[in-house]
Amino acid sequence: MKRGFGSDNHSGISPEILNAIARANVDHALAYGDDEWCARTEAIFREHFGPQAKVYFVFNGTGANVLNIDAMCRSHEAVVCAETAHINVDECGAPQRVVGCRLLTVDTPDGKLTPDLVRQRLHGFGFEHHSQPRAISITQSTELGTLYTLDEIRALADLAHSYNMYLHMDGARLANAAVALGCSFKEMTTDLGVDCLSFGGTKNGMLMGESVVLLNPALDVDMRYRRKQMTQLCSKMRFVAAQFEAYLTTDLWRRNAEHSNRMAQMLLDELRPLGVRVMYPVQVNSVFVQLPAEVWHALQQEYFFYDWDEAQNVVSWMCSFDTVEDDIRGFVQALKRLLA
Amino acid sequence: MKRGFGSDNHSGISPEILNAIARANVDHALAYGDDEWCARTEAIFREHFGPQAKVYFVFNGTGANVLNIDAMCRSHEAVVCAETAHINVDECGAPQRVVGCRLLTVDTPDGKLTPDLVRQRLHGFGFEHHSQPRAISITQSTELGTLYTLDEIRALADLAHSYNMYLHMDGARLANAAVALGCSFKEMTTDLGVDCLSFGGTKNGMLMGESVVLLNPALDVDMRYRRKQMTQLCSKMRFVAAQFEAYLTTDLWRRNAEHSNRMAQMLLDELRPLGVRVMYPVQVNSVFVQLPAEVWHALQQEYFFYDWDEAQNVVSWMCSFDTVEDDIRGFVQALKRLLA
Amino acid sequence: MKRGFGSDNHSGISPEILNAIARANVDHALAYGDDEWCARTEAIFREHFGPQAKVYFVFNGTGANVLNIDAMCRSHEAVVCAETAHINVDECGAPQRVVGCRLLTVDTPDGKLTPDLVRQRLHGFGFEHHSQPRAISITQSTELGTLYTLDEIRALADLAHSYNMYLHMDGARLANAAVALGCSFKEMTTDLGVDCLSFGGTKNGMLMGESVVLLNPALDVDMRYRRKQMTQLCSKMRFVAAQFEAYLTTDLWRRNAEHSNRMAQMLLDELRPLGVRVMYPVQVNSVFVQLPAEVWHALQQEYFFYDWDEAQNVVSWMCSFDTVEDDIRGFVQALKRLLA
Amino acid sequence: MKRGFGSDNHSGISPEILNAIARANVDHALAYGDDEWCARTEAIFREHFGPQAKVYFVFNGTGANVLNIDAMCRSHEAVVCAETAHINVDECGAPQRVVGCRLLTVDTPDGKLTPDLVRQRLHGFGFEHHSQPRAISITQSTELGTLYTLDEIRALADLAHSYNMYLHMDGARLANAAVALGCSFKEMTTDLGVDCLSFGGTKNGMLMGESVVLLNPALDVDMRYRRKQMTQLCSKMRFVAAQFEAYLTTDLWRRNAEHSNRMAQMLLDELRPLGVRVMYPVQVNSVFVQLPAEVWHALQQEYFFYDWDEAQNVVSWMCSFDTVEDDIRGFVQALKRLLA
Repeated sequence: MKRGFGSDNHSGISPEILNAIARANVDHALAYGDDEWCARTEAIFREHFGPQAKVYFVFNGTGANVLNIDAMCRSHEAVVCAETAHINVDECGAPQRVVGCRLLTVDTPDGKLTPDLVRQRLHGFGFEHHSQPRAISITQSTELGTLYTLDEIRALADLAHSYNMYLHMDGARLANAAVALGCSFKEMTTDLGVDCLSFGGTKNGMLMGESVVLLNPALDVDMRYRRKQMTQLCSKMRFVAAQFEAYLTTDLWRRNAEHSNRMAQMLLDELRPLGVRVMYPVQVNSVFVQLPAEVWHALQQEYFFYDWDEAQNVVSWMCSFDTVEDDIRGFVQALKRLLA
Repeated sequence: MKRGFGSDNHSGISPEILNAIARANVDHALAYGDDEWCARTEAIFREHFGPQAKVYFVFNGTGANVLNIDAMCRSHEAVVCAETAHINVDECGAPQRVVGCRLLTVDTPDGKLTPDLVRQRLHGFGFEHHSQPRAISITQSTELGTLYTLDEIRALADLAHSYNMYLHMDGARLANAAVALGCSFKEMTTDLGVDCLSFGGTKNGMLMGESVVLLNPALDVDMRYRRKQMTQLCSKMRFVAAQFEAYLTTDLWRRNAEHSNRMAQMLLDELRPLGVRVMYPVQVNSVFVQLPAEVWHALQQEYFFYDWDEAQNVVSWMCSFDTVEDDIRGFVQALKRLLA
Repeated sequence: MKRGFGSDNHSGISPEILNAIARANVDHALAYGDDEWCARTEAIFREHFGPQAKVYFVFNGTGANVLNIDAMCRSHEAVVCAETAHINVDECGAPQRVVGCRLLTVDTPDGKLTPDLVRQRLHGFGFEHHSQPRAISITQSTELGTLYTLDEIRALADLAHSYNMYLHMDGARLANAAVALGCSFKEMTTDLGVDCLSFGGTKNGMLMGESVVLLNPALDVDMRYRRKQMTQLCSKMRFVAAQFEAYLTTDLWRRNAEHSNRMAQMLLDELRPLGVRVMYPVQVNSVFVQLPAEVWHALQQEYFFYDWDEAQNVVSWMCSFDTVEDDIRGFVQALKRLLA
Repeated sequence: MKRGFGSDNHSGISPEILNAIARANVDHALAYGDDEWCARTEAIFREHFGPQAKVYFVFNGTGANVLNIDAMCRSHEAVVCAETAHINVDECGAPQRVVGCRLLTVDTPDGKLTPDLVRQRLHGFGFEHHSQPRAISITQSTELGTLYTLDEIRALADLAHSYNMYLHMDGARLANAAVALGCSFKEMTTDLGVDCLSFGGTKNGMLMGESVVLLNPALDVDMRYRRKQMTQLCSKMRFVAAQFEAYLTTDLWRRNAEHSNRMAQMLLDELRPLGVRVMYPVQVNSVFVQLPAEVWHALQQEYFFYDWDEAQNVVSWMCSFDTVEDDIRGFVQALKRLLA
């Protein structure tokens, strides 16, 4: 396939991850998470997120998000999220089908909730006709490539808790966010009052593996049954744990994320002289631009990427851990040619 | 961990599978199944199951079973299965939660349905108070290590179709069954009228990967949405497809299954002189025996395995592709000692 | 329509009930249960069931049963019940669809669970692959017209509680049971440790109205939302409450139930000389008999009733509050003629 | 309770309805809809809606809406509706829990969808990550007391059908709309291409009874099972049918609706001299006004009504079939006094 900027899961597996899988491929191990790799990796999560953190490995981001929502909400409750949130637009209604709850969406300029935006949705408490707001969900970094500051996260956590609600973070790209903000995972989650987290590895170099990280121990109820019943229990789980072990005990998570963030900055820098409109601040590994239709259509003949909003001629370009500088240069070269 | 006979998913990954993953780890590929590995592997499935076969890759056996049930039944309908069926006892109620349907269970002597046993459940058609029987589900090989003959499968398919119902086969160990019966996958499924299949690879040497194989094209409706919504859509799907490609284009599936079946026969042979009670015919890779409680408790100190029915002192011993003859010899040696 | 013995909901409305509705038809009242009729009737329930009883009115028996199950169980949990239980065979899978849980059924000789029968299902606790047993559900009087003694109920409640489980009673015909046992509602429920109850009025003379009665306050969580979300919230609820008020403040419940029970006894007495096989003890208002197929087919031409088990030629005859002695006499007359 | 303008279901039962129930209270009738009242009333629905109309009686509006959505959509599909739609804000998430689907909401100035507003939501077809738009739902008359013209409805039906989607109408107040528009039910639904309808009686004088009316025969699949399984099957259904029979064979539906509409107009007329801000056109039986907080709080001491948007000091006043002119006069008198 031609290379491109379609998604960070168009890339393959980091060699370190594949090696870790190979190293774990010895002898027998108990299935379903009761093995030594899982035990060891759970301890590593506690180092990264604090001693009360409880991790449940799952297969994919949808699984992680839905299991987190299931931990926070019963079906008559609701999650406040941005209209652009992955759980709202990109799960084909999985939260509705599997948990049965509502999502209360808010329009945002940049994919980020604020306390004021969330408050629009905080009413009807105690009124049986209305789904009861029970959680706020934010994505860090957001689906638009923007970032919450630590203060912004804390403010949302405080708001949630003041209403006896939970704050969930969809961290499919948490590593990119941590690198960009120069903070640890714990400083961006546990320390701010985040209650639970979807922590992803697949988009940053893993083969396949995501996780639910419960930071608020009150949420840790019946999780193994809930995970199993929603079809997210992995049998040979040591091979998921081994990936996370390699990812988190070395600086692999950081190195990969730094690289893809840097590639996006390089792309942005190269775009500047061209005068194309960049839609959002480029804070992690994606760049959204508006281009004449004929230009981006032609560019797609040479490089793979997706349109984001066809009506507005906005496309998204996403860098990944395996994007190389030549990809950027060739791509911008082609764009320059087409714009001319 | 000490070696044992707990489950065929306590084993690791066949080297050929790991190599296939490594070979697929090149460059960029579209996510979610739109890549060349998936295209190629889908063609291989058609070779194995016939040109009308349609395959959907999923993460695990629960996912494959639930997606198949979802393809066959709406929530007011029901699946007839053996009381011992994995979908009944070992999915923590996933079909009920995700599909919302009923399972109509039948007691069996050996884990196998027969037309007569199924007919007990075929009533109430057209009566709105009763869930409508819509599918029969069998497991090949069964959870008790027994096998359906081809004629027995055909009889159940005919029965299902005569009631406008479907026949589903849970083939988590289909390779073991095919090897034992000396037939191809197609001869055991498509040719007999099986409508859909959960085809597993994980228990026979894959890292992680199962599949829904629709043999009846009428079932192929909205499957991609249904898979996504039930959280079973894999992003870097090329790595699942690549495993199945290696599994099915070489004789790996056959070699691994032959081996684990042979190990179970060896175990059975070694047990004969000891006079222990074997509960079911040993037809594939598992042996169920009844032992004095103190014996199997002591044996578990040396080798890992599960009790099957603690009240009856029945335990299950399962061989896998990586069981070696020394495992069997050492195990029987230990048992002999304990029985003495 | 020709009269018959098909069901106690083939009868109409007790005049006292209709009068109560008419009396409540004055002026304005708040909807959804916040009216004075509901307040008054809730107090009446507390008189009948004890001060801790909490009542939620619903539309029908399915609604009452499913809301009770929803109060006791989450989707990964399970309810142990008789194979013949209404929640198992006659709700078209409503518990599975609405709650998402499993029912663990037990074969019984007479529709009654016993501690020994239930214990067969009490295993797999803590094993994530198995739905976790969380409730026992019994029907009083049973679907086969039999009765639990108070001691038998207490034994099941004790068993449930010893496993941290709940005991639910489906009391669609609780009045018939109370009359037959000569006890109060409280003596048959609260005093024995029953945790929650589906208390029906429709089969015993009400127009339409059932209720969930929570006797264990621990179950009273989010019930108004759960009722609403499962479509069981009535707007003009005063008219349901007013029916229960009339039913429970007078001896109407008792009078109607005594009558239908007495009619079943009269039917039984008249049958005795005929030598037909009666299948179960006749303890409340139904009689199950085995008859030659041509006889019951012919009898159905003259009187309406249902077959219970067509294969075994067992039919069920049910008396209701409006069955009159002439119905019985004419019916037995016809049967006599056909048997001759 | 003090009289008020809280809701049209704070009123009681029209005497004609109660009489119809009493008249149906004779002898035995088959349960669950197989009785002569249901047969007769189904024929009456066909007279009102055309020969292809199929009616399913249910208990309440939530039941009617959810059963209609269930007829149109599977869980991976979605319904486009106004943000203010009852199915969105006032069902406590019943569509999400029972059907498992998504609602795609649109902000509207007056509770009314337009083709342009709907088109914002019509994208992502064929993309497995997105719930597939499958239905449009409108409320006639709307939750804000506004009306769709016949042309507006036809335009939405045409739009729906051009996308292979369905048009659902929530007609909890369809009688008020028909009276206001001076058209028949059929002219407002079947003739315009409406595919299915929630047709209500409770808010316009019935005791309890709503209905699903399928106008597109393609939707009539497995409906009896679906209704039963979602707990909406009534046993003594003749008493629901008898209400609709009285409602539809006489001019009762028209008389009651005309009256409540007229009362709202009278209220509006009396308000005019007071200079209060009326928020929406008063087209049926409700009036939304903005008032100083201290005024409406004080007014609530004398008359019952709800705030609609507390933040904006908007309250809603709803007239019902039993509102009398003196209610209006007294109410406006009180308001005048408080405004002074």
